[in-house]
Amino acid sequence: MKKVHGIFAPIATAFDASGEVDYSTFAENTVAFGATKLSGLVVLGSNGEFTLLSHEEKVKLVETARNHLPAEKMVIAGTGCESFRETLQLTKECAAVGADVALVVTPNYYKKDMNEAALGNFYTMLADASPIPVMIYNMPGNSGVNVPSSLTLKLAAHPNITGIKDSGGNIVQISEVLAKAPEGFSVFAGSGSYLLATLLLGGVGGTLAVANVVPDYCAEIQENFEKGDLEKARKMQLALLPLNAAVTSRFGIGGMKAAMDMVGFKGGLPRLPILPAGEETRKEIARILKELGIPTV
Amino acid sequence: MKKVHGIFAPIATAFDASGEVDYSTFAENTVAFGATKLSGLVVLGSNGEFTLLSHEEKVKLVETARNHLPAEKMVIAGTGCESFRETLQLTKECAAVGADVALVVTPNYYKKDMNEAALGNFYTMLADASPIPVMIYNMPGNSGVNVPSSLTLKLAAHPNITGIKDSGGNIVQISEVLAKAPEGFSVFAGSGSYLLATLLLGGVGGTLAVANVVPDYCAEIQENFEKGDLEKARKMQLALLPLNAAVTSRFGIGGMKAAMDMVGFKGGLPRLPILPAGEETRKEIARILKELGIPTV
Amino acid sequence: MKKVHGIFAPIATAFDASGEVDYSTFAENTVAFGATKLSGLVVLGSNGEFTLLSHEEKVKLVETARNHLPAEKMVIAGTGCESFRETLQLTKECAAVGADVALVVTPNYYKKDMNEAALGNFYTMLADASPIPVMIYNMPGNSGVNVPSSLTLKLAAHPNITGIKDSGGNIVQISEVLAKAPEGFSVFAGSGSYLLATLLLGGVGGTLAVANVVPDYCAEIQENFEKGDLEKARKMQLALLPLNAAVTSRFGIGGMKAAMDMVGFKGGLPRLPILPAGEETRKEIARILKELGIPTV
Amino acid sequence: MKKVHGIFAPIATAFDASGEVDYSTFAENTVAFGATKLSGLVVLGSNGEFTLLSHEEKVKLVETARNHLPAEKMVIAGTGCESFRETLQLTKECAAVGADVALVVTPNYYKKDMNEAALGNFYTMLADASPIPVMIYNMPGNSGVNVPSSLTLKLAAHPNITGIKDSGGNIVQISEVLAKAPEGFSVFAGSGSYLLATLLLGGVGGTLAVANVVPDYCAEIQENFEKGDLEKARKMQLALLPLNAAVTSRFGIGGMKAAMDMVGFKGGLPRLPILPAGEETRKEIARILKELGIPTV
Repeated sequence: MKKVHGIFAPIATAFDASGEVDYSTFAENTVAFGATKLSGLVVLGSNGEFTLLSHEEKVKLVETARNHLPAEKMVIAGTGCESFRETLQLTKECAAVGADVALVVTPNYYKKDMNEAALGNFYTMLADASPIPVMIYNMPGNSGVNVPSSLTLKLAAHPNITGIKDSGGNIVQISEVLAKAPEGFSVFAGSGSYLLATLLLGGVGGTLAVANVVPDYCAEIQENFEKGDLEKARKMQLALLPLNAAVTSRFGIGGMKAAMDMVGFKGGLPRLPILPAGEETRKEIARILKELGIPTV
Repeated sequence: MKKVHGIFAPIATAFDASGEVDYSTFAENTVAFGATKLSGLVVLGSNGEFTLLSHEEKVKLVETARNHLPAEKMVIAGTGCESFRETLQLTKECAAVGADVALVVTPNYYKKDMNEAALGNFYTMLADASPIPVMIYNMPGNSGVNVPSSLTLKLAAHPNITGIKDSGGNIVQISEVLAKAPEGFSVFAGSGSYLLATLLLGGVGGTLAVANVVPDYCAEIQENFEKGDLEKARKMQLALLPLNAAVTSRFGIGGMKAAMDMVGFKGGLPRLPILPAGEETRKEIARILKELGIPTV
Repeated sequence: MKKVHGIFAPIATAFDASGEVDYSTFAENTVAFGATKLSGLVVLGSNGEFTLLSHEEKVKLVETARNHLPAEKMVIAGTGCESFRETLQLTKECAAVGADVALVVTPNYYKKDMNEAALGNFYTMLADASPIPVMIYNMPGNSGVNVPSSLTLKLAAHPNITGIKDSGGNIVQISEVLAKAPEGFSVFAGSGSYLLATLLLGGVGGTLAVANVVPDYCAEIQENFEKGDLEKARKMQLALLPLNAAVTSRFGIGGMKAAMDMVGFKGGLPRLPILPAGEETRKEIARILKELGIPTV
Repeated sequence: MKKVHGIFAPIATAFDASGEVDYSTFAENTVAFGATKLSGLVVLGSNGEFTLLSHEEKVKLVETARNHLPAEKMVIAGTGCESFRETLQLTKECAAVGADVALVVTPNYYKKDMNEAALGNFYTMLADASPIPVMIYNMPGNSGVNVPSSLTLKLAAHPNITGIKDSGGNIVQISEVLAKAPEGFSVFAGSGSYLLATLLLGGVGGTLAVANVVPDYCAEIQENFEKGDLEKARKMQLALLPLNAAVTSRFGIGGMKAAMDMVGFKGGLPRLPILPAGEETRKEIARILKELGIPTV
């Protein structure tokens, strides 16, 4: 089974002014990210506005990414849907167009029904049937559902479940998984704000919204950590916090896309109902980029 | 604009053993509900497992309901999707097959982005373009997003926004809307547990999971209230609480479908990842039905 | 056992400029409230800043209230402390100076330890030993601890537990208690925003921050309800919402004391660390009072 | 100003069977902890059941600890109360009997009123008047109030505010403080579950419930980290998680005291309303201690 390792950007989906997916701009971004230190891309992640896309758009985006990314870089596809049947179907189709791994968010609208039994059954049935390895995607901030460490550890024993991306930010829960997960189970930070802490405790990478803006910077935190320069890694981690907050908790998708525009990637407009960042937000993001020493275009 | 009034069941969607929608069983339930005191049905509500259905299945279910329900009973279609474009498209298609009103849940995966500006814009654009009246669906327990009374009151001024179904259970928020909403704006209780309190404060009906199990009982609470028999209404409301909790907060969709089976409607299996009720749960529901004096089959 | 019934104000504690309790101003307020339609006063309630008072100050305030309130009006004393021993001691001392009933908030700093077993034991031991009836005070907004209806119903069987003041605002939880509580167990609304809903479902009164500002208005909601003028009661309830929010959720203790000043009672300064209302807040409260038609001084 | 550094136990308060403070057993524990690698003790911490103690008991406990602890070990006193006036008074009295630093929890019952302005004013007035340095104590799990990093950073500029103990477990918030705090401002982990992550990011120690059970183990995590043996520190940190959870989130004060008994310290009974650990809990704790390789008595 392929091991996931390193920093991934959950690549933004590009839309044109009419709200249609703009595959050629998306391909441009893919090519640009391919030239960075990133280990690969997550297509259809939360930052890819995946819940706003049709099934057909999703598959075509994964195919486009695979076609424009160097072969040695991995494509992880976000294939989680509310129903098991659609999740499995989408996983198979994304695998067929070249996805290496399926990153699968918890179904979440029916929170009361998404108890440990239901989630355990869902991931197990999916991993049994999926042609590619499955990575659990815990994203309680968006989903309102948390995968407790006890469940993650049960699922980690499945031969086709390869890891977890935990975007909850609960470093204790992440630690509990790292303490008891089998050799080779990959734990990923889900946000740039606790990347270094996750690595220190045994994590092997991260999928970070902020890597859509400063991919090399993020990869260098891990580089420095892995070569033992803890002090450099620590300084870079701490300095990254304001930008990370700006493109996630403070200003959401609109803020992240605005920041991408400023540094030379193509962020553009979100899809409705998400609104683009306003003028005040853009000024604040520009200020934060400057403070971090990132050149803007 | 048609006024919504009275008790509606958010009719369950029937599935066969393979997980396909079973339209003929759904039609049977529709016919059965048509013979009750219900004012109509909500098709594609939360209790209809709408997030687990495809676009095509959704439209066909609305059409089936319209074809099997007496003409004087209203069909409300749950047309909310994560993206504005799909919501509008589905609303138009459901209107074309006979839906009277669109009940539209807040987009909710991107919670940080779903601020008042984004939600206000979403509902306004939708109401501008929808061929049928729009009813706001506030369902924070599932969605993690709340529509504050201030926003509801702004939207209530739109000529094509006809009301709100509030499933949050916050009686103060419901009161704030009732205090200042324009004449003719319909406020619906979203759960059977606070139906009478909502009516007392000026609400005009409810869409209640428990109406899938005891439709006439629910309608009689409102009948008694409207004819001034407050004491009878109060007793029925209080006695309903254990059954209402069983088919919502305690046992979810699986519990509601099990209860439907017990009283002679066709509940059947939920769609995966939702699991059916287990044996212990069924026993507890049977006990609660007996306590309420509801005959089981 | 004395039955509590009607509207009570959780009387504010007056402080002088140096932060000392001003018993004579407090006595003036007591006399003024004695001339209203209130059924009595809660001394040492949340709005009395009870956690900021010493043991000695608490007892003296209860004594002062008793001495200045007409004999037919009840004094309820808020005697809940974090430790059982201090709660019992304070309850005895307050009873000795004339308190009719002890209103006892859940201990709450050790939230993990305050499970149903610990809370059940606490209230039972207290009721066993208290010379006056005990009323449970559920105040999750301040305490972070909720008393579930199942526990309230267990405790309601104790001969020396006379009722509950529920300030959680969860009308379903309140209904569950009313559905099964024994005859004579008094359920009180803990806020003016859901007073009428509580009465409708079987409650017998309320202890309302807003009754520190408009005591007769609050009592008249109950009067109208009890004489069957539901429409008048409903209109008054809905019109009260903005003022109720201003003196609770929006502007806290500082806001409530400012509003008292405006209508002719003596609010004055809160005790530190609570800050008094600022100028903008006062203007907004004045606007709300005017909208409700309350004359200001 | 004295710098706080290293691992502190928030020493348990001993009670006799009648519920009175047992100062001599407390002194025994103090002497025992004095012989460990701990840097000192926090007296009157959350784990010292401080909210269940009288003012007089609090001062006497601090005095007892100071008298029985080696002079080179620090005594930090938890002097936070709900009112400013009592907090200041207690801080002065604890300083007079030998406390080196005051650890001051946020006032918390009046959550709505405890906004940034009120908290900022509270800590500033206290630090202005306190004879000993003040350490902010952020404990949202118990208090329901969080001190945001922005406020901590403002307060860090005060010459008499020496640091923060953050028990919220939000590693991002802790990082934000570490990123911008002035040289010499001490950041402490408030739980053993994220000690190593805090140290890595720039923290200088911790006050840990679990240090009441395994003081040397906790101190050795920091020792290993400081001498560069990251791998050893990581393994010890991960292995500590189950015990840490058992004496905090899972079994509370009762669980912590039971664990102390098992390893040879004197835990004994909590004060009511807190209940002692039951038999099942004790077995589970014994199992966890064994798994960690800690000898029991």
